[in-house]
Amino acid sequence: MKFCSNCGGKVERAIPPDEDRMRYICKSCDIIHYENPLMVVGCLPVFENKLLLCKRAIEPGYGMWTLPAGFMENGEKVEEGAIRETREEANAEVRIGPLHAIYSMPIVNQVHIFFHAELKNINFFPGKESLEVRLFIEEEIPWNEIAFQSVHFALSTFFDDRRSGKSIPHTGGFCPPEK
Amino acid sequence: MKFCSNCGGKVERAIPPDEDRMRYICKSCDIIHYENPLMVVGCLPVFENKLLLCKRAIEPGYGMWTLPAGFMENGEKVEEGAIRETREEANAEVRIGPLHAIYSMPIVNQVHIFFHAELKNINFFPGKESLEVRLFIEEEIPWNEIAFQSVHFALSTFFDDRRSGKSIPHTGGFCPPEK
Repeated sequence: MKFCSNCGGKVERAIPPDEDRMRYICKSCDIIHYENPLMVVGCLPVFENKLLLCKRAIEPGYGMWTLPAGFMENGEKVEEGAIRETREEANAEVRIGPLHAIYSMPIVNQVHIFFHAELKNINFFPGKESLEVRLFIEEEIPWNEIAFQSVHFALSTFFDDRRSGKSIPHTGGFCPPEK
Repeated sequence: MKFCSNCGGKVERAIPPDEDRMRYICKSCDIIHYENPLMVVGCLPVFENKLLLCKRAIEPGYGMWTLPAGFMENGEKVEEGAIRETREEANAEVRIGPLHAIYSMPIVNQVHIFFHAELKNINFFPGKESLEVRLFIEEEIPWNEIAFQSVHFALSTFFDDRRSGKSIPHTGGFCPPEK
């Protein structure tokens, strides 16, 4: 960020009065430009005992496998975002279920949220951002070709839950500080 | 948004190639400026059978009661954000527990996330954004003076869970479209 989106003036990094961290502040109109984490929303689409994954046609992670997920948009609810992303990446229609996992990625300022989901049918096909879309049984999951740490976490906890018969939401990337 | 934060040029609203919705696009450097929802993170701090609430010293909701919560910052995990906000608003130290609720507010482009939490001690006192901080038993909760719909949801599901003996995460503000 170099310029103010409100007045076009130059911005500088400084700690505003009453705050404790550096922000972008406009030298002309004094507006503080806050920066906040982005949410990535997606789901684990299940058909019978199989799970739908998408092979990425874009970077990052070109050629790797992922769950359908993407940046949440303004004006939608978390679950609506997960439905939209699944449609965009896999032309797949899902019924969203309970929350499965929240995974924080502070290094890239993202939080990834995944829901359980039921595939309504198997008429899916790759969207523009996918090279391939297919269903996997657990033994077929390409563990060494999973695009993101958050997706690996969502998948491994999903299959752990299936084995244990429990289904609780998982929080990952966390390790809250014990001070 | 009127000006480009990258080059200072004028931005306009248009649908970028390969996209399906209006974005701010810079007429000079062609950068697309995406806008995405903000996360508000907080917790339900419990001491014995009481819950900590804060009376707001700022708008919106001046004079109303809320759970400690606020905008998540870059560089932190969701739970770290909840710990920080509880410290800022109530000078209270908490041990964060499982996820309690996710509440989407698409009208204001926000998602509110609340965790269960244990108050480490009762040496709390109001932070700058609070007029008063105190512990409430269920019968004392000022239901008609709760600042936000999301907080009302988090509180009512919390006490419902306590009565039923179940503790599952709740998703609110949702109603995913069944198309």
